[in-house]
Amino acid sequence: MPYVNIRVTRENGTPTAEQKAELIKGATELLVRVLGKNPATTVVVIDEVDTDNWGVGGETVTRRRRQGK
Amino acid sequence: MPYVNIRVTRENGTPTAEQKAELIKGATELLVRVLGKNPATTVVVIDEVDTDNWGVGGETVTRRRRQGK
Amino acid sequence: MPYVNIRVTRENGTPTAEQKAELIKGATELLVRVLGKNPATTVVVIDEVDTDNWGVGGETVTRRRRQGK
Amino acid sequence: MPYVNIRVTRENGTPTAEQKAELIKGATELLVRVLGKNPATTVVVIDEVDTDNWGVGGETVTRRRRQGK
Amino acid sequence: MPYVNIRVTRENGTPTAEQKAELIKGATELLVRVLGKNPATTVVVIDEVDTDNWGVGGETVTRRRRQGK
Amino acid sequence: MPYVNIRVTRENGTPTAEQKAELIKGATELLVRVLGKNPATTVVVIDEVDTDNWGVGGETVTRRRRQGK
Repeated sequence: MPYVNIRVTRENGTPTAEQKAELIKGATELLVRVLGKNPATTVVVIDEVDTDNWGVGGETVTRRRRQGK
Repeated sequence: MPYVNIRVTRENGTPTAEQKAELIKGATELLVRVLGKNPATTVVVIDEVDTDNWGVGGETVTRRRRQGK
Repeated sequence: MPYVNIRVTRENGTPTAEQKAELIKGATELLVRVLGKNPATTVVVIDEVDTDNWGVGGETVTRRRRQGK
Repeated sequence: MPYVNIRVTRENGTPTAEQKAELIKGATELLVRVLGKNPATTVVVIDEVDTDNWGVGGETVTRRRRQGK
Repeated sequence: MPYVNIRVTRENGTPTAEQKAELIKGATELLVRVLGKNPATTVVVIDEVDTDNWGVGGETVTRRRRQGK
Repeated sequence: MPYVNIRVTRENGTPTAEQKAELIKGATELLVRVLGKNPATTVVVIDEVDTDNWGVGGETVTRRRRQGK
């Protein structure tokens, strides 16, 4: 019954549906491999966050990207 | 001041506005009944998650629904 | 596969084990009743938070309790 | 490496892009000032929540706003 | 700057320090492999939850384990 | 009714009770200043995370600190 929450910025069309499926598969396999958890009850939820809503270094990612960071 | 976060997939038009109101009412009543909390400061937040973004058993819910799971 | 996270302060020995069991039971029943979810895959997680770590009105709950709030 | 998650309702066009940038700046400065954290690895994420999805006092914020609360 | 939160029950001495290090390593590699994220700014946080505080099927994990589930 | 969750590692006795009170005060003031929110219903919750449970760059903070990072 592990719960894994993956939060990433939504940028340039990513994460795509395929990438999200891959993240879910990989995160589940990780919990199975390391802790022997039951994949059938392992929940993975991906949150895609707008770059205006994600900050690092006191700046929005929108602004950082404009500055080539 | 309890904080309750309910995360569900967004599927077939659910949860509707009425259902969300019912979840908020029910969750608040639960905290009042069991812990005697003050409803006026009980916060309930519902997150609706796309089925591409929710995984169980290593698969997206989108894929599981296509397979009738 | 709903995920419900209930965050409450830990005060005066509450929530007790019985209260936590009651919260889990009640939250699961709510998701079943309102959204028809499968209880077997409904996850409820309770976080107990120290009163030094919970703030309302700009003050810790520890301080508010000392002031009879 | 602090992680700060700010959850607010989305109402009347707020929070604007400028307000979100201000929240990110302010939250980062707070962690630097109080705990001496490195701003370069301080992550701030803002979640904007629909008023149908946010409840206080057992009611949705949508309903409370209609009642002038 | 992805943020990954892994929530698991604390049972029988697990997760051990080594397992937690393995989860952190694996989750970071997953974000690098699938989304090309920078490992240096990928944050992984593991929450260990008491079995009294985790519910599935309307029951605490403590109770389920006693019943051999 | 904003909800602010601040997650930091627990290291060398920090954050102290005074620092936590300062974080709560500062985060509340930030929401009042920027969004005009009501401090009386602004909730701030601080999670202190063990350095074995926090990873950056694929490593636990425990390991990074041993390496002087």
